[in-house]
Amino acid sequence: MKKLDKITPWKEDFAQWYVDVIKNGQLIEYGPVKGTIIFKPNSYAIWENIQTELNRKFKQKGIQNVYLPMLIPDFFINTEKEHVAGFAPELVTVTHIGDKKLHNNLYIRPTSEVLFADLFKKNIESYKDLPLIYNQWTSVMRWEKTTNPFLRNSEFLWQEGHTIHSEATEARKLTRDMIKLYEKFLRKYLAIPTIIGKKTPREKFAGACSTYTIEAMMKDGKALQSGTSHYLAQNFSRAFKITFTNKKNEDEFAYQTSWGLSTRLLGALIMTHGDDSGIVIPPKIAPIQVDILELFPSKNPKVSKTVDHLEKWLLKKLRVRVDRSDNLPGYKAANSEIQGVPIRVEVGPKDVEEGVVTVVRRDTFEKEKVKIEIVREWIEEKLIQIQEQMYQRAKERLEANTVIVSNYEDFKKEIANNKFVIIPFNGDEKEEERIQKETGATARCIPFKYLKPTDEGTCIFSRKPSKRYVLFAKAY
Amino acid sequence: MKKLDKITPWKEDFAQWYVDVIKNGQLIEYGPVKGTIIFKPNSYAIWENIQTELNRKFKQKGIQNVYLPMLIPDFFINTEKEHVAGFAPELVTVTHIGDKKLHNNLYIRPTSEVLFADLFKKNIESYKDLPLIYNQWTSVMRWEKTTNPFLRNSEFLWQEGHTIHSEATEARKLTRDMIKLYEKFLRKYLAIPTIIGKKTPREKFAGACSTYTIEAMMKDGKALQSGTSHYLAQNFSRAFKITFTNKKNEDEFAYQTSWGLSTRLLGALIMTHGDDSGIVIPPKIAPIQVDILELFPSKNPKVSKTVDHLEKWLLKKLRVRVDRSDNLPGYKAANSEIQGVPIRVEVGPKDVEEGVVTVVRRDTFEKEKVKIEIVREWIEEKLIQIQEQMYQRAKERLEANTVIVSNYEDFKKEIANNKFVIIPFNGDEKEEERIQKETGATARCIPFKYLKPTDEGTCIFSRKPSKRYVLFAKAY
Repeated sequence: MKKLDKITPWKEDFAQWYVDVIKNGQLIEYGPVKGTIIFKPNSYAIWENIQTELNRKFKQKGIQNVYLPMLIPDFFINTEKEHVAGFAPELVTVTHIGDKKLHNNLYIRPTSEVLFADLFKKNIESYKDLPLIYNQWTSVMRWEKTTNPFLRNSEFLWQEGHTIHSEATEARKLTRDMIKLYEKFLRKYLAIPTIIGKKTPREKFAGACSTYTIEAMMKDGKALQSGTSHYLAQNFSRAFKITFTNKKNEDEFAYQTSWGLSTRLLGALIMTHGDDSGIVIPPKIAPIQVDILELFPSKNPKVSKTVDHLEKWLLKKLRVRVDRSDNLPGYKAANSEIQGVPIRVEVGPKDVEEGVVTVVRRDTFEKEKVKIEIVREWIEEKLIQIQEQMYQRAKERLEANTVIVSNYEDFKKEIANNKFVIIPFNGDEKEEERIQKETGATARCIPFKYLKPTDEGTCIFSRKPSKRYVLFAKAY
Repeated sequence: MKKLDKITPWKEDFAQWYVDVIKNGQLIEYGPVKGTIIFKPNSYAIWENIQTELNRKFKQKGIQNVYLPMLIPDFFINTEKEHVAGFAPELVTVTHIGDKKLHNNLYIRPTSEVLFADLFKKNIESYKDLPLIYNQWTSVMRWEKTTNPFLRNSEFLWQEGHTIHSEATEARKLTRDMIKLYEKFLRKYLAIPTIIGKKTPREKFAGACSTYTIEAMMKDGKALQSGTSHYLAQNFSRAFKITFTNKKNEDEFAYQTSWGLSTRLLGALIMTHGDDSGIVIPPKIAPIQVDILELFPSKNPKVSKTVDHLEKWLLKKLRVRVDRSDNLPGYKAANSEIQGVPIRVEVGPKDVEEGVVTVVRRDTFEKEKVKIEIVREWIEEKLIQIQEQMYQRAKERLEANTVIVSNYEDFKKEIANNKFVIIPFNGDEKEEERIQKETGATARCIPFKYLKPTDEGTCIFSRKPSKRYVLFAKAY
């Protein structure tokens, strides 16, 4: 058993705190290849729960899972020019099999738009074949210069949805539906509030017509793009010549979308809910919801009996783990805390004699003695409360730290204070570049509704009226 | 909607039949890179069900899922000599990022023993840290010269388990436990009987001390290795210097195992149960267990009402799909058959007037009129029967086509007849090579018990007594 290390307080050094939390929570190990990580059981189990819940929602929407090969031939890569330009320098390139050189290079997928384009091309003839609504769970590779566990890795895990439609309106609607599904999923399951909106042209996905995003606020005030949905229009279908016969019996290029969520979410989870004792996992997504700690196991046979009883009883409805080791109570408690288990139940000799156990919340450290007969119902209710309150606290933080300003001086000041700053803004890509250079902030999105004022503003740069309000922030 | 093609009868041309079944069942599409396949919804959904059931069993055994990166650095690859020799010519080699050359080549994992060795090395110090029992679901790459969908592909999906122990006996036991778990899983869920046994030294996994296997018999009499479990002893721990402090406070090399099942199982499924109408999927693993076909939807409002009612009612316990299209009844039935759905319920105007529906079994084509009030219970029972009978039929075929012989002439004759042939055999690798050259058969395994005679035999080559009975067959 590894000794627990000290965690740097988050207000002191956020980056170091993040690394300490990950290490102590036994979430990852660094991989042998630059910028890669190993997902250990504690982090992979969270990802599996995310998969299970999202799959359930996907299936309700008729989304079908598939698996496409990981290697992309070079003649595919070069077909959609804007798309390839966005990824070319990061492409992991296969040139040999054993020591034999290949005639044409192959690339490990950085994303699979071009592979799906080829699949769609082979599978559609008429509007009757459409839509096709596919998703896959895979790993992808993008060689990154600076990496950060979960947030930016050379290899990461994700789901990527790819759809093809006979009607632009249907594809546009699905693009928006998916970003809303993501927003709701983060809100309900990860207890993470996000601002939903559209990317500016400078920030959109390479090859997309428009990109929607959900932006979360980390505890240090920085934004984390947590999910995206792209309307690809006919960009890929024109490049790959994907046509179908429409109702008028004419050939038409099809309309596509793509959308994804990745293991970045594990980083978002840590930096939204974590504290100076480590990660805090929302109950709905926690691999272990309740830790039962047997204190001084050998002292009193009633303690072991109560632990056995509680385990059996709680397991019927909850994900439970029991620590029967002979470690000291303080160590057991710290070990449960550092792994972010929402509730721990301490079963000790004195409590048991009184017919109670001590229940401790991970998020607030609230401690309560609860009668054994009612402890299951008590915990079930408490888990619902914890989930809700974790979301409420994160939402209050997001709202308290999002401001609207009307001039550049205030903008610079608020960005320096690590706020989310919304401004009326009709500038172009160059303007955004200048802002980034001067303040470090980028345009995160044009929010759908969040804090969007109803009256028309004045662009803080051009001083012309601007109906477009843009959220700026420093970002991961 | 693609038109259904004719399926070549399996007794006429088994290889062509296999390809026809896959194509008509909409199971795959060939990938753009040589030897790769795209898992379409119909095949991927079967794999997902296999994953779900195996994960449930793995978790009961305390196996933890993890994810390790896909790229292996060259200094890892060269550490275990026997292992690397087994894979070197098939290794997919990364030399560049974008157009920049890497200092050291990287390889896409053909399997992950060396990556787990490195992870274990970082995570164990004392016998108290052991065992670690990990599994991962991934894709792996081995560049194959001749490929065959599901059976042999350059990229395939699998689970690979990797464990490390302080005691050889514990590791040996786990190796055998896993092959038994696989045997039971195939028997209970895929309705595939297998012969469980140990590989001869010639056929064992590169780097293993011993390899256990389950061998299934396809309808053409060929063997398909369907799962393997390897006792690695200290081979990798010596090469990677993975030591732990044992109870005597001495440093000791740890003991390892690895084991895996792959998407080959989809090929096994087709070639065990398929017939001239296509794939037949066992109910427990079928993505759709019941197809409800609405016949002549517009003719009688009672039909639609009955279909709606049945759908709602059956969905409570079963995986159900409804075909409400205006295609003709014959087409709908053929479409359900060709996708191997275990039961279809035909709801037509005449039947409905009489208060019945027509239920058809996919495996036997048995047709029966069943009263609507009892149809759910009837189907539930029938699905259990189908599962059992599919297994029984496959088992009878396996037993009827497995023989024991005592001389080489009979051996050659039976192998030519596509039988599984068991012989007393104490020959070495060279002898096995000669047999393969002369008959096309390889040593599949030394069976644990199946058809193993109790008295001591005489090796059919050396004419010396042999306690070792070996199963030979032609194989995929």
